[in-house]
Amino acid sequence: MKALVYNGPGQRSWRDMPDPVIEDPEDAIVRVDAVTICGTDLHILKGDVPSVQEGRILGHEAVGTITAAGAGVRGVAVGDRVLISCITSCGRCEYCRQGRYGQCLGGGGWILGHLIDGTQAEQVRVPFADRSVYKLPDNVGDESALLLADILPTAYEVGTLNGRVRPGDTVVIVGAGPIGLAAITTSKLFSPSYIIVVDMAEPRRKAALDLGADLAIGPDENVAAAVREMSNGLGADVAIEAVGIPATFELCTEVIRPGGTVANVGVHGAPATLHLEDLWIKDVTITTGLVDTATTPRLLSMLAAGRLAMPGLITHRFGLDEMQDAYDVFSRAGETGALKIALFTEQGMEPETHAT
Amino acid sequence: MKALVYNGPGQRSWRDMPDPVIEDPEDAIVRVDAVTICGTDLHILKGDVPSVQEGRILGHEAVGTITAAGAGVRGVAVGDRVLISCITSCGRCEYCRQGRYGQCLGGGGWILGHLIDGTQAEQVRVPFADRSVYKLPDNVGDESALLLADILPTAYEVGTLNGRVRPGDTVVIVGAGPIGLAAITTSKLFSPSYIIVVDMAEPRRKAALDLGADLAIGPDENVAAAVREMSNGLGADVAIEAVGIPATFELCTEVIRPGGTVANVGVHGAPATLHLEDLWIKDVTITTGLVDTATTPRLLSMLAAGRLAMPGLITHRFGLDEMQDAYDVFSRAGETGALKIALFTEQGMEPETHAT
Repeated sequence: MKALVYNGPGQRSWRDMPDPVIEDPEDAIVRVDAVTICGTDLHILKGDVPSVQEGRILGHEAVGTITAAGAGVRGVAVGDRVLISCITSCGRCEYCRQGRYGQCLGGGGWILGHLIDGTQAEQVRVPFADRSVYKLPDNVGDESALLLADILPTAYEVGTLNGRVRPGDTVVIVGAGPIGLAAITTSKLFSPSYIIVVDMAEPRRKAALDLGADLAIGPDENVAAAVREMSNGLGADVAIEAVGIPATFELCTEVIRPGGTVANVGVHGAPATLHLEDLWIKDVTITTGLVDTATTPRLLSMLAAGRLAMPGLITHRFGLDEMQDAYDVFSRAGETGALKIALFTEQGMEPETHAT
Repeated sequence: MKALVYNGPGQRSWRDMPDPVIEDPEDAIVRVDAVTICGTDLHILKGDVPSVQEGRILGHEAVGTITAAGAGVRGVAVGDRVLISCITSCGRCEYCRQGRYGQCLGGGGWILGHLIDGTQAEQVRVPFADRSVYKLPDNVGDESALLLADILPTAYEVGTLNGRVRPGDTVVIVGAGPIGLAAITTSKLFSPSYIIVVDMAEPRRKAALDLGADLAIGPDENVAAAVREMSNGLGADVAIEAVGIPATFELCTEVIRPGGTVANVGVHGAPATLHLEDLWIKDVTITTGLVDTATTPRLLSMLAAGRLAMPGLITHRFGLDEMQDAYDVFSRAGETGALKIALFTEQGMEPETHAT
């Protein structure tokens, strides 16, 4: 089969790799019908995630069809159309028992496209299939489902829920990539009074406003003053970091009010400066986290019920074999205006949405 | 009257100052009977708290007797023996309505010995007296009461409660000064399995063990390995920072397990490095905070009921006019073995405890 392979920092290839096979009774093999590229894949390519070895097939988000299942798989079967989640879980360890699947000690967690081969391929082996794939209702299309593989649960759990967004809050979201934009949608579920989005790129600021942000500004503007103006002079109740560099994290800690929460979602490759000389007295909470996908079943119900639309988020569509072109477009998002990219095989192609 | 005055970084004097007078109907004037010195006062003297102006009387913890009260004071009266809390509150602003008195926007918060003259004096003006002083039961002595002015509520609220200590937890407390030692007592209320204390000074490590820590080690030992050994290899559930320097904060973020909480209690004068390149994926919560003293009435009941003893915490006793000597002993705690210092006037002197 063909697959996108990481060859060390800055290098990737689309090449032949062995077909995956069942290695454990809880495995499933899934034929990939639709797949996407995550900002995290770009972090890996930059060398920010040293746990990814050379020769690894990347990708941790896809929709596909089960072609084989081990004897221990009970919840899904060959022929099922499924969402492949970025998080798998053993279901047995201390963290899994707490619902912290992202921290699974039994061989799960974020492993696809990280510690084992991932979804940017024609086929993928998915361990712990009963706790890693979700059977899709017919009325949820591949494109919507793709958003549930990572970005919607991540924005919801690591951004909105960790940030404890509450009615009336002033929420600042730094970074309007797919995760930041999804955090607008998931934060609005809690009826904040104002959502202020900060991003360098005008097309992303426009996308943020289209999705319901109240203000979208560049990081070169006086963000702290703008936030104070929309928060009775106090600062943000919640600041969601959705970029992954020190400057954006530090901006979040600068605009937060006493008693507020900074929810870090970004994948970081370098340390940040924590200004404890200002923050020690301020009752600030800072959270980090990997998504657990504990909310994925509920988000899937909401999507099926039409309660979680994110129109316009997928900006570019490709055939699966155009993977390298898709990476080029996504890595130059500043120029191309790419938000989320979707790649389809013949099976996954949705004629009504594939036309760009 | 005599008072301890801050004369800029590194400089203090014990000198004549004008007697305080009622300035607002909610003020009370309190004659100081017993008072203590806080680690925060040493931070102020180092210049770590630039909001303290030269000429300020320091001190935010005392027991005394009300000698005058404004017309708006209803809860206490002249002659009452009271605890003066480190936190006052207007009771009217948004933060006070949430119980976040430390962040009061109406002129309260931590103001004594910070923004207005404090308690290291023969008399002190206490604003918002109804929400700043607590009438003491007869069976709570001055020494016990002094611990309630700051260290017990701070250790409880900013350490134990912010850290969310739960039964079975492995708790690491970095710094065994009075706050760190008090955090042993307040954390044990939640039945953790292990408390590991880290401090450079042997007498403080001994005090930690006496108060119920399970292990007390120096920062030069392999703290992370010791913590892993007492936590199934996972790291601390809760790490409480009770020093206030970058190295101790960073140690807390190093020993914390995925899903754990670092509760910063220390007063910091410099930024720390936050290793987001390791932490972004770890589901870590970091909290900072100033005590609200929302728990002070409950802690006072527990003290009166004999449920919150901290024997041995007050190591040195002085007369009020020996203030400069007391500061000398407290600032050289490494040599003198000082934990908490208490200074008494004739009225506050407790013969049975004053003998050292």
